[in-house]
Amino acid sequence: MTALHLEGVACPAPFRSTTTVLLGHGSGGILSRDLLARLILPGLGTVAPHSLDDAAVLAIGGQRLALTTDSHVVSPLFFPGGDIGRLAVCGTVNDLAMMGAKPLALTCGLIIEEGLPFETLQRIVASMQAAAQEAGIQIAAGDTKVVQRGSADKLFINTSGIGLIADGINISGANAQAGDVVIISGTIGDHGIAVLSARENLGFETTLTSDAAPLNHLVEAMLAAGEVHVLRDPTRGGLATSLVEISEQSQVVIELEENKLPCKPAVKAACELLGFDPLFIANEGKLVALVKDSDAAAILAAMQQTQYGQEAAIIGRVIGTGKAQVRLCTTIGGTRLVDMLPGEMLPRIC
Amino acid sequence: MTALHLEGVACPAPFRSTTTVLLGHGSGGILSRDLLARLILPGLGTVAPHSLDDAAVLAIGGQRLALTTDSHVVSPLFFPGGDIGRLAVCGTVNDLAMMGAKPLALTCGLIIEEGLPFETLQRIVASMQAAAQEAGIQIAAGDTKVVQRGSADKLFINTSGIGLIADGINISGANAQAGDVVIISGTIGDHGIAVLSARENLGFETTLTSDAAPLNHLVEAMLAAGEVHVLRDPTRGGLATSLVEISEQSQVVIELEENKLPCKPAVKAACELLGFDPLFIANEGKLVALVKDSDAAAILAAMQQTQYGQEAAIIGRVIGTGKAQVRLCTTIGGTRLVDMLPGEMLPRIC
Repeated sequence: MTALHLEGVACPAPFRSTTTVLLGHGSGGILSRDLLARLILPGLGTVAPHSLDDAAVLAIGGQRLALTTDSHVVSPLFFPGGDIGRLAVCGTVNDLAMMGAKPLALTCGLIIEEGLPFETLQRIVASMQAAAQEAGIQIAAGDTKVVQRGSADKLFINTSGIGLIADGINISGANAQAGDVVIISGTIGDHGIAVLSARENLGFETTLTSDAAPLNHLVEAMLAAGEVHVLRDPTRGGLATSLVEISEQSQVVIELEENKLPCKPAVKAACELLGFDPLFIANEGKLVALVKDSDAAAILAAMQQTQYGQEAAIIGRVIGTGKAQVRLCTTIGGTRLVDMLPGEMLPRIC
Repeated sequence: MTALHLEGVACPAPFRSTTTVLLGHGSGGILSRDLLARLILPGLGTVAPHSLDDAAVLAIGGQRLALTTDSHVVSPLFFPGGDIGRLAVCGTVNDLAMMGAKPLALTCGLIIEEGLPFETLQRIVASMQAAAQEAGIQIAAGDTKVVQRGSADKLFINTSGIGLIADGINISGANAQAGDVVIISGTIGDHGIAVLSARENLGFETTLTSDAAPLNHLVEAMLAAGEVHVLRDPTRGGLATSLVEISEQSQVVIELEENKLPCKPAVKAACELLGFDPLFIANEGKLVALVKDSDAAAILAAMQQTQYGQEAAIIGRVIGTGKAQVRLCTTIGGTRLVDMLPGEMLPRIC
């Protein structure tokens, strides 16, 4: 856990002094990391060394398997461009893909609130199946629990998955190197803003849809095109949080160019309205890659040939090593440091 | 799914005509099976053929891996002899062990209700770790989600796991053979009654403790001692439901002797008081095995040498094939048919 460097993180005092779990502990940002580092990881003494990556890597009989889990609690269950079922499959497929693994099989654990209409469950199961088919993965095992009305909010879905890492593939947040080029696979913030727009009490509308998608075929194309060092899907906590994590795991300085960040006008507009920064908004069908300088053009071109990489763009570079920092060259010519999401911005976004 | 034979199952009409999920759909009995067969499995078209066993079996690069998942929603979180953390680890370890697999790694997905005391979480995480250590398995990956107050009941834990099935091991609910001897590893009903006793509103007390325990070492001892055809841990739905499932998967007639069923006096007393049948009460540290006739004595002796098999007993036999039936020779000399748990008896028992 040395890569965490918690001492260096400035966190609002009130959060630190709480004795109970806050919504922000599920944000994917600083508070989440704090809960992990101070309570969960020390408790689970046997946690594997790769626990800071999107999946653990296990050596089994001469093969490397990636293993990952994600619970999904998104509210509402259906949102423009997706639903909790598609999200649950894509989330776990992507965590496997971010280790360079070929996803092999998923498990599906449903926690259902008594009273959920069959029709709702049926639509969500069909959506899981469609997403699994798109990713080319089988849903191999499942479990269903039902709790009383009021003991859960409609439906929670856990998906866990295993994937096979081919020989020669070695991808980790700890593998960034000096000179690496940072590529994003498309526009940022789509998922978070699409889910937000579906929450009735917020009263704003948009034509935006979630980007929820399985990225394993995109990753395959990238690995065939050149040397990829780091892959991560910037979900909770957004692109900023993913890059800060990578900078800490690899001890590198990453410089981003704000004017290169692809972001839809609808996302920009919603963020301005709500006081959000797209850098911190969740994505569910995007990846950020750090790749070898000389292979960047080939990898970018390969990405742009795929369904979910058409708007891929180079957005920055590793400009130094020996310390962890993410810097943003702003559109108005300044530079600012980027940190993780401190608390909670959008609860239950995934 | 042909092994399900739903046509043959008599189920109260009102359950069948509902359009929403009922508590009984999480019982592990007939309603659970109905939900699976009519909605979830047809939706997930790619479900693996082993979905009726406790874990799926995947062939990966010449090796057979078992993969399983379980969400735990037990209420209360702490009960005599265990807590949700121990339950979550043992539940998944046991599902792997029931395929004859050596458990290798677990994932842990926490869904936390805002406001859960850190101290509670800490105790539960420590308990997970202790159970994992006892089983000799690592918790390799995790995920934490937090939902608003009132959107979940304190804490739900999903554990998924993978295990390695050694060459020559072939255990499945479909493998029962004529003449097989039925062995239970100890007393039945302890877990269900212990959890029930911890529910304040029921107002009865007992010195009984849950049997929650990892059974992988017990299974190892059994496999070394003789030919094991079927293993199952009778959790939700109890021993009756497990045996009915096995009889259907294997198309065999199983005869049990009621006076051979080990059951603690406290469990018997509680069942009489509450109108329950111990055959349907959940266990979390027991297994039922169908083993080769000529190896039964050796397997039983090996079981009795282990920590969790000291009270193992032979309780019945496969007396016929070609149809699915479980018969109970009662203590008063009669014979009755045993069916699955029809609806819900003890919600949130695991």
